[in-house]
Amino acid sequence: MGASERARRVAIVGAGFAGVEAAKTLAKNGVDVLLIDRHNYHTFIPMLYQVATAVLYPHQVVYPLRRLFRNFPQVRFVQTEVEKIDFERQIIHHKGVGINYDYLVIATGTQTSYFGVPGAQEYSLSMRTLPEAIALRNWIFSKFEEAAKTIDIEKRQRLLTFVIVGGGPTGVELAGALKELLDSTLRKDYLCLNPKQARVILLQSGEDLLTSYPQHLGKYAARFLRNCGVKVNFNSKVCKVTQEAVHLEDGNTLFTNTVIWTAGVLAATPIIRQSIETADREKVIVKPTLQISQYPNVYAVGDLSYVESQGQDFNGVAQEAIQQGRTAANNIVRELIGKSPQKFAYYNKGRLAIVGRHGGVGKIGKFTFTGFLAWWMWLYVHLFYLPGIRNRMGVLFNWLKCYFEGEGASRIAINNTTCNNKD
Amino acid sequence: MGASERARRVAIVGAGFAGVEAAKTLAKNGVDVLLIDRHNYHTFIPMLYQVATAVLYPHQVVYPLRRLFRNFPQVRFVQTEVEKIDFERQIIHHKGVGINYDYLVIATGTQTSYFGVPGAQEYSLSMRTLPEAIALRNWIFSKFEEAAKTIDIEKRQRLLTFVIVGGGPTGVELAGALKELLDSTLRKDYLCLNPKQARVILLQSGEDLLTSYPQHLGKYAARFLRNCGVKVNFNSKVCKVTQEAVHLEDGNTLFTNTVIWTAGVLAATPIIRQSIETADREKVIVKPTLQISQYPNVYAVGDLSYVESQGQDFNGVAQEAIQQGRTAANNIVRELIGKSPQKFAYYNKGRLAIVGRHGGVGKIGKFTFTGFLAWWMWLYVHLFYLPGIRNRMGVLFNWLKCYFEGEGASRIAINNTTCNNKD
Repeated sequence: MGASERARRVAIVGAGFAGVEAAKTLAKNGVDVLLIDRHNYHTFIPMLYQVATAVLYPHQVVYPLRRLFRNFPQVRFVQTEVEKIDFERQIIHHKGVGINYDYLVIATGTQTSYFGVPGAQEYSLSMRTLPEAIALRNWIFSKFEEAAKTIDIEKRQRLLTFVIVGGGPTGVELAGALKELLDSTLRKDYLCLNPKQARVILLQSGEDLLTSYPQHLGKYAARFLRNCGVKVNFNSKVCKVTQEAVHLEDGNTLFTNTVIWTAGVLAATPIIRQSIETADREKVIVKPTLQISQYPNVYAVGDLSYVESQGQDFNGVAQEAIQQGRTAANNIVRELIGKSPQKFAYYNKGRLAIVGRHGGVGKIGKFTFTGFLAWWMWLYVHLFYLPGIRNRMGVLFNWLKCYFEGEGASRIAINNTTCNNKD
Repeated sequence: MGASERARRVAIVGAGFAGVEAAKTLAKNGVDVLLIDRHNYHTFIPMLYQVATAVLYPHQVVYPLRRLFRNFPQVRFVQTEVEKIDFERQIIHHKGVGINYDYLVIATGTQTSYFGVPGAQEYSLSMRTLPEAIALRNWIFSKFEEAAKTIDIEKRQRLLTFVIVGGGPTGVELAGALKELLDSTLRKDYLCLNPKQARVILLQSGEDLLTSYPQHLGKYAARFLRNCGVKVNFNSKVCKVTQEAVHLEDGNTLFTNTVIWTAGVLAATPIIRQSIETADREKVIVKPTLQISQYPNVYAVGDLSYVESQGQDFNGVAQEAIQQGRTAANNIVRELIGKSPQKFAYYNKGRLAIVGRHGGVGKIGKFTFTGFLAWWMWLYVHLFYLPGIRNRMGVLFNWLKCYFEGEGASRIAINNTTCNNKD
């Protein structure tokens, strides 16, 4: 442990892909770690949209953190909301208590940006956490129930119109899955509703979907979604959201009770007492070693960090976060034994997105592909990376059930209206 | 369909055991039914405590109503909260809309009674619905997390003290399961906490547990729970609940952050425009045919009804509700073809309660039994009655996992703090 007399305290804030990988890497190197998160579970974010569309059950896409680290006694976990971090004094403040650290890894990911669009935050749904994905699932089924009991045709049309804002991977994946859910649910369980009345509308501000992929993959995704019956509207900029409509800059109005916002992303950096340099989308600028230049004992990794002069294009996929978490942890281990930290080198394993049944897009190295192969690879890769053998079995079962029977998870809306006051 | 010119409209309010059985019976006899419930799923209430103690997943103890009746096109479902029922005009009011009926079955079950104890409703948790059971699970794990991060010994003791009010079947079953949960979770996942500090205290106002069973079964349950480490306090009447304590009539105070109220039961009858006769616990008095005497086209069944001059002792077990639902439905069918309704005759299949691992109590006819046999029968019977083959498989898997590994479902606390405003 170097020349220091006492063990150095290492803290990690955020137990997403980057934070968990950093904690594991440190623990494997025999370093004690304090891991902090606001939830007591790790969320497998790429599959949240399948909870929202009732393909999977909530517990299948998360993993309890204490169980994840049961065999890593070096990792101590604290569930709390961090209020403020003081880089000078090296203290993490939460609920009136301070936690001291010698090394810190910040890995708190991203939050939704509404670009200041009036009503967007208030009246649209988001899907960034498990509670939000569950709330979205409950919301969707409530709209079906409301539609089933209204005789007002316009109101029913509004209840059965689902608008997704943002044509990135999340928006595209959700649009395809939601359309499948509408088709199968309405056909089987709502004989009083006309499935043709149910619409999924995907709004994209630019002229292409999936702009982080080569253009022809975005074109493929748009074609695929349209074939499935999703309405894909390009050059559609939202200027206002209300409880019953989305207003577009071109003057059009879409009447809907459900707006799902997947468009904007901002770094979700905790409040820092000192001012630090940030880049586009408020990302924290870090050196190629992932250290913050003014505070070299602080590492920022994953979606909230912007790696300087890397010359590489990061898109917020899980692999980037995992590899950055590992690099930061290894750098701390190096520092502890008196070595200097190394630069982060991203090994690009490629990327995949799913568009619908038998439809996906992928890019591995210079090779791009679409259709069945990409779809199948997405399923395979995500199943492989999902933590927990039981979760994997359960997810596989639900996918097969969904594939052959058209329904994966139970279509239940657990609303909180009857909850007691304490919750 | 008798002499009437148009089809008679039959409505059922409440999709618990009684309501679902009534709907199925009517449908099988070719009668169209409107089924109303505030949730879009049927809850298998006897297993809710296993959701609260993370043995089972929420979806495993409920069944979507539309799926339950997918093969019964005679059953139309409406998810809504009934505001008021007018027995004279034969109208069910909900959200400003009126639903007319010719025959009505009320099966809305029970609600918690706090006997006017100050603070009880405000500061104690209940476990009567799925959202409440989930909230209780989240609450329990949050207390573990809070205890893990406090260094104040008294506060930690308070956080790890769980008080259950009421020594009926729910209280007894919950006490045993909660103690098992505490033991296994703290031993495995909270190495910083002393498992001996965690306490489950069961408060019973009288001198016996399970008063609806023969006395020696209650004695057995108390002995069994005490052997497991549950503190069972008799003659303990709660006179006040606060955020941090339970005050007893004998002057004692138990410091705790968690009070689970299983003690009181009241009929959860919807608001009726007319005044009707009620018995003890506000139960609706019905004739032996289950009809309300002033309004013979209205049937009240299940836990909310009090059958006059029956000479039998009803205890709110599922079988009573199921058989009453069936009788009410058959009586409506009889009326529709011009026959007169028949008296309800309860076929007592016996009753079972589980106390803990390998421990249960049972009574079938005059025969009573305890221990392994009762425990095993409880599991068998409840698995048998659970709707849905997949739920059964999943529940069996979780039980086996819990039995051999000491943990069934994921120990996750899904709090709503990060939920968006729309929820």
